Amino acid sequence: MSGNTLGTLFCVTSFGESHGPAIGCVVDGCPPGLAISEADIQAELDRRKPGTSRHVTQRREPDAVEILSGVFEGVTTGTPIALLIRNQDQRSKDYGNIAESFRPGHADYAYWQKYGIRDHRGGGRSSARETAVRVAAGAIARKWLFERYGIVIRGYMAQLGPVEIPFASWDDVDGNAFFAPNQSIVPQLESYMDDLRKSGDSVGARINVVATGVPVGWGEPVYDRLDADIAHAMMSINAVKGVEIGAGFASVAQLGTDHSDEMSPEGFLSNNAGGVLGGISTGQDVVVSMAIKPTSSTRLDRHTIDKAGEPVVVNTHGRHDPCVGIRATPIAESMLAIVLMDHALRHRAQNAYVVCTTPKIAGLAPAGVQSVPSPRSKG
Amino acid sequence: MSGNTLGTLFCVTSFGESHGPAIGCVVDGCPPGLAISEADIQAELDRRKPGTSRHVTQRREPDAVEILSGVFEGVTTGTPIALLIRNQDQRSKDYGNIAESFRPGHADYAYWQKYGIRDHRGGGRSSARETAVRVAAGAIARKWLFERYGIVIRGYMAQLGPVEIPFASWDDVDGNAFFAPNQSIVPQLESYMDDLRKSGDSVGARINVVATGVPVGWGEPVYDRLDADIAHAMMSINAVKGVEIGAGFASVAQLGTDHSDEMSPEGFLSNNAGGVLGGISTGQDVVVSMAIKPTSSTRLDRHTIDKAGEPVVVNTHGRHDPCVGIRATPIAESMLAIVLMDHALRHRAQNAYVVCTTPKIAGLAPAGVQSVPSPRSKG
Amino acid sequence: MSGNTLGTLFCVTSFGESHGPAIGCVVDGCPPGLAISEADIQAELDRRKPGTSRHVTQRREPDAVEILSGVFEGVTTGTPIALLIRNQDQRSKDYGNIAESFRPGHADYAYWQKYGIRDHRGGGRSSARETAVRVAAGAIARKWLFERYGIVIRGYMAQLGPVEIPFASWDDVDGNAFFAPNQSIVPQLESYMDDLRKSGDSVGARINVVATGVPVGWGEPVYDRLDADIAHAMMSINAVKGVEIGAGFASVAQLGTDHSDEMSPEGFLSNNAGGVLGGISTGQDVVVSMAIKPTSSTRLDRHTIDKAGEPVVVNTHGRHDPCVGIRATPIAESMLAIVLMDHALRHRAQNAYVVCTTPKIAGLAPAGVQSVPSPRSKG
Amino acid sequence: MSGNTLGTLFCVTSFGESHGPAIGCVVDGCPPGLAISEADIQAELDRRKPGTSRHVTQRREPDAVEILSGVFEGVTTGTPIALLIRNQDQRSKDYGNIAESFRPGHADYAYWQKYGIRDHRGGGRSSARETAVRVAAGAIARKWLFERYGIVIRGYMAQLGPVEIPFASWDDVDGNAFFAPNQSIVPQLESYMDDLRKSGDSVGARINVVATGVPVGWGEPVYDRLDADIAHAMMSINAVKGVEIGAGFASVAQLGTDHSDEMSPEGFLSNNAGGVLGGISTGQDVVVSMAIKPTSSTRLDRHTIDKAGEPVVVNTHGRHDPCVGIRATPIAESMLAIVLMDHALRHRAQNAYVVCTTPKIAGLAPAGVQSVPSPRSKG
Repeated sequence: MSGNTLGTLFCVTSFGESHGPAIGCVVDGCPPGLAISEADIQAELDRRKPGTSRHVTQRREPDAVEILSGVFEGVTTGTPIALLIRNQDQRSKDYGNIAESFRPGHADYAYWQKYGIRDHRGGGRSSARETAVRVAAGAIARKWLFERYGIVIRGYMAQLGPVEIPFASWDDVDGNAFFAPNQSIVPQLESYMDDLRKSGDSVGARINVVATGVPVGWGEPVYDRLDADIAHAMMSINAVKGVEIGAGFASVAQLGTDHSDEMSPEGFLSNNAGGVLGGISTGQDVVVSMAIKPTSSTRLDRHTIDKAGEPVVVNTHGRHDPCVGIRATPIAESMLAIVLMDHALRHRAQNAYVVCTTPKIAGLAPAGVQSVPSPRSKG
Repeated sequence: MSGNTLGTLFCVTSFGESHGPAIGCVVDGCPPGLAISEADIQAELDRRKPGTSRHVTQRREPDAVEILSGVFEGVTTGTPIALLIRNQDQRSKDYGNIAESFRPGHADYAYWQKYGIRDHRGGGRSSARETAVRVAAGAIARKWLFERYGIVIRGYMAQLGPVEIPFASWDDVDGNAFFAPNQSIVPQLESYMDDLRKSGDSVGARINVVATGVPVGWGEPVYDRLDADIAHAMMSINAVKGVEIGAGFASVAQLGTDHSDEMSPEGFLSNNAGGVLGGISTGQDVVVSMAIKPTSSTRLDRHTIDKAGEPVVVNTHGRHDPCVGIRATPIAESMLAIVLMDHALRHRAQNAYVVCTTPKIAGLAPAGVQSVPSPRSKG
Repeated sequence: MSGNTLGTLFCVTSFGESHGPAIGCVVDGCPPGLAISEADIQAELDRRKPGTSRHVTQRREPDAVEILSGVFEGVTTGTPIALLIRNQDQRSKDYGNIAESFRPGHADYAYWQKYGIRDHRGGGRSSARETAVRVAAGAIARKWLFERYGIVIRGYMAQLGPVEIPFASWDDVDGNAFFAPNQSIVPQLESYMDDLRKSGDSVGARINVVATGVPVGWGEPVYDRLDADIAHAMMSINAVKGVEIGAGFASVAQLGTDHSDEMSPEGFLSNNAGGVLGGISTGQDVVVSMAIKPTSSTRLDRHTIDKAGEPVVVNTHGRHDPCVGIRATPIAESMLAIVLMDHALRHRAQNAYVVCTTPKIAGLAPAGVQSVPSPRSKG
Repeated sequence: MSGNTLGTLFCVTSFGESHGPAIGCVVDGCPPGLAISEADIQAELDRRKPGTSRHVTQRREPDAVEILSGVFEGVTTGTPIALLIRNQDQRSKDYGNIAESFRPGHADYAYWQKYGIRDHRGGGRSSARETAVRVAAGAIARKWLFERYGIVIRGYMAQLGPVEIPFASWDDVDGNAFFAPNQSIVPQLESYMDDLRKSGDSVGARINVVATGVPVGWGEPVYDRLDADIAHAMMSINAVKGVEIGAGFASVAQLGTDHSDEMSPEGFLSNNAGGVLGGISTGQDVVVSMAIKPTSSTRLDRHTIDKAGEPVVVNTHGRHDPCVGIRATPIAESMLAIVLMDHALRHRAQNAYVVCTTPKIAGLAPAGVQSVPSPRSKG
């Protein structure tokens, strides 16, 4: 299967380079009957788009999406939905100096050796600009998941460089440029970023994502586990270097009696599993955390080599994000939505008519706990 | 595609339950001309097999593998290689009491709700017994990778519960029951496990795996990145709750100038990337770390519900590993081998005849550093 | 995806060589809750198995199938079903003389050039023996299709070499060794075959297959059309050289007003479409016809070359069918069952909950016509 | 996998409706380094485009293609190539009367029952307009196949309704509106079509396609045979009802000694196999024939039902082809190119480095015969 297609039944095929004419995707397998408009998709794209605060890249891309197919009279028809986003604010000249050398931490050297040719402008295919199409495709998935199953997918920044961000409230997330779930810490984040920007350096971040309302039973045993497919999707996001489900790495030091989530007729008593057992959803919140590495582009001098293998020094004058993690929350939410929708369809295919008389139990019982799904809160 | 098949070109299709007649797999897509015997595969299976020390399950399975097809006069023919392992030492009666209730931390409840039917004996399909077929298939992949490209894949235990295991030497790994790369810490590990076993509880572990000699250029951009496929494969192993590539979660707090690996004509100067940039191998060591949760089966009482939704208390009398991480190293190595071989073939398909005159640079220059590939050593 | 796996959601992965230890398959994606036993599968295998009349190969294979996984207490669990058939009556010595030369009409030369190695014994992987696993897997599909949807899949021989076989009755099909739907023509077929066998030559056949009761709406637009997937499955059977849906090649000379099937509230008025329009089932009978070439093995001398490229003369002493078409009917039925089941699941995934208030109309109205579904009867 | 994606490694994902904003596709997996321009693709599109003679639909579509990605400085980069064709000459009002009823022979009823919603304008997704994207994608494949392997893919009309077209010369094919390989028969074809058009009816056709220069060894055993994948691709073209490889249905009445192609050191002595044995190319011409049904749209009254299930009479006022077979030749060539390229890559992946010292023999020896590859000439 093509390396630029994600999913088995809900399939997203992505295309486009940072400084080419356009980026976009084909979304195949969406059930018919879903009301979807360009405005629905645009709303999600606007959450990710560049140039919205001083803390992100100043490239001005409206990221205006056009639906080319698959929607008739405002409703999906079951045929492929093609989404097109024209690139507008390229400044390829900014990147002229990187045509001949390989930026540290970027894919330049690996692409060049793999293909023997490379669209170096803005990173070409390896640019984080591609993540816009994930958000566009994800907008369809999250609308369908909510309308059909009531599933809500939300993410937030849990850590910015050295600054841990205690979870306060979901309501705070959209009130700041960082997707921080804690308004009181925002001044500290702004100050940190202002200093960082002046230094010319970049920094990493941790993003958490939670899906609430996922029914029990989604996922496949063995290889295409729900958590394995989530790990695949998240690790496929530019700059992600680690993925956790539920308690994640904290489970290394846990005892079994601490980790394994007990059950009662009223529901699960904890959620170290992060909503997945044996690769199959349990009905609890699906809880994912990921590490975003610092942006590889910095204004500071770095040692590298050029196409002839000779040593050179590079730094980046092109516009870029000093912390790509800041705009990563909508992307991570979208990837989780795409994976969940794919497994919803896979589950329906095989098990749509399964009858199970055992009562379904609730997710994590105390509502207060459920709203703080950070896997680290278990650690 | 089937949820029990892994890979795009080198495809492993797994079958079997813990207490059914047999487990096994079909390995499709292996190039012809590889010398492979049952003894080659058995050697790897014996590294994973149960009953080899007091620290693991006492189930006695010879795990004797039979090659049913695809090998002619000792050499692969390019047709599917079927591998069969008969189950022998089932004691299904031990599990009779769990037929009616759902063990915490196990897939029992999720399977039951998904399928409406469940082979409860020893966990059925969700048992870690399935990982034997991964090791069998991986034995083929690792032999091919070594013979064709000189790639060596090695893993070790980096942490057992609360005990961190400093990397001393690869030579130590096979000298103890834990795959610990440090013989001097083995008494401490044994003592910890003896106490744990007496307590009836279980514990987690961290496993690291490193592939040395991977050529630059393997992997696909965007969705089927090499690191994304590795994350998928590792998270598909029973009990894995987190995966890191290179610096992993440590990269959250890193600055860009700390994280991004500089290059010189003599080679890379560090390996925070873990051998993958933009989803494509760089020629450095591919470095992976994973978290294994504590075994969900313990002898201690746990609260749960039964099929009627009523509260019950369960504990486990069946034989089981108090720390599944102890036998996880060969499994993790095998999964990495399978993913690398799949991408080797994918790369050859598209780029077998690419000419690139830029010199390939070496991996991490100082050999001493290269032999301590723990991503945490970068943190 | 692996070349030895068929299907997107109902996936059959096949393995095995003619004279290796065993053949078999893994059937993944079967819904849970289907009662299936080895006897159910054996009954279909026995319809295909060799040695049952003087008109087919005298190799004596019991083709005894063993279910290795995926069935618990007589019912499918939703996990992979592995099926194993041990080879028993190999006489590999019969084939020793073909190790060094390439039999005309066989895959010998193509395999040798492709792989550089070849299990020549009995044709190895290219032997029609592999079709036993298709019948075994198909037995599961046809049982599920019948129990869930009332679908009946039946085939028959429509032509043996130059002898056209007029359709008389479905009841006749199982009453003779040829699957001829016309008992009165059987003596002519026997006489033809006896003469052919004496001559040492071989001959082709035409097989028709019909699925009755397929609901409207199965299939995918554009590439994975139901008829395209049927064509793929049928052409993948050894010796098939042509596939028709409905009127097939007769439609070349038809006018649009002759070909396109009119509709009335009581149902369709004809079935030139063969039950598929735009790649999607219409609710009419799905009607398929295929051409089987004459067996390439004959006792007569044929010119060819050996591995050194030198001219040699070959003939076949090994046991073989003088008309492989005679045993092809159960295979073709099985392939149709597998494709239909795959599309049933695909349809459920995307459209399980579609509401369409338009009444469904019946298939071909006059029952008498419906029971003679030969596409050639339209010609 | 998505029903709108074709191929395993060379993947074409298609989108678009007849009267929507655009049609197009994403071509993934193309090797880097192929020089390709919009002009290259346009040249193939112009061979298929409507409105070029009085014998085809008068819809005026320039079918101007735009390359959106994957090509840098005129050369493929190895990343997805997105192709966009805007629709321009829709007259959707012509189709208003078919919104409420189901045209016989069209996919209207099947789509409606499958999805519960239908873009009826011009047939929506089921329109043959989608075939333009196949030609666009095929243009890339055929250029690569020619440049890398010298493969030439050519097709022609072999029969128009009742008129058989004897093969005279490849040179004649592009000299007439029918792709007839025989200029002397063109007046008869024109006269036939003029009469047909006046009658308001439509008619079928037979198209043959031949690939010359395919190396021995492409294809997979068992399910993904080269011929099976060709059958799939051809049957996926709108209106195709039958596919033959080599001797096709003529092989039913052949004896084995007539059918199986003998070999000599100078080459094969015949080509009944159509260039494929055991699913693998032999190095001979790959020869395919297909039946195209008559266009379902006619100006003549036809009985059908409406969405309420009530009887109605329909006829078609929208512009359409009276014989879709006339424009089918470039489509069939393109599909063959796509399948061959996919298998070229699959073969390279597994067997790129196979060494086979047996000399490769030539295709059909006498050049005169090779240039008349019609499988019917064997009949």
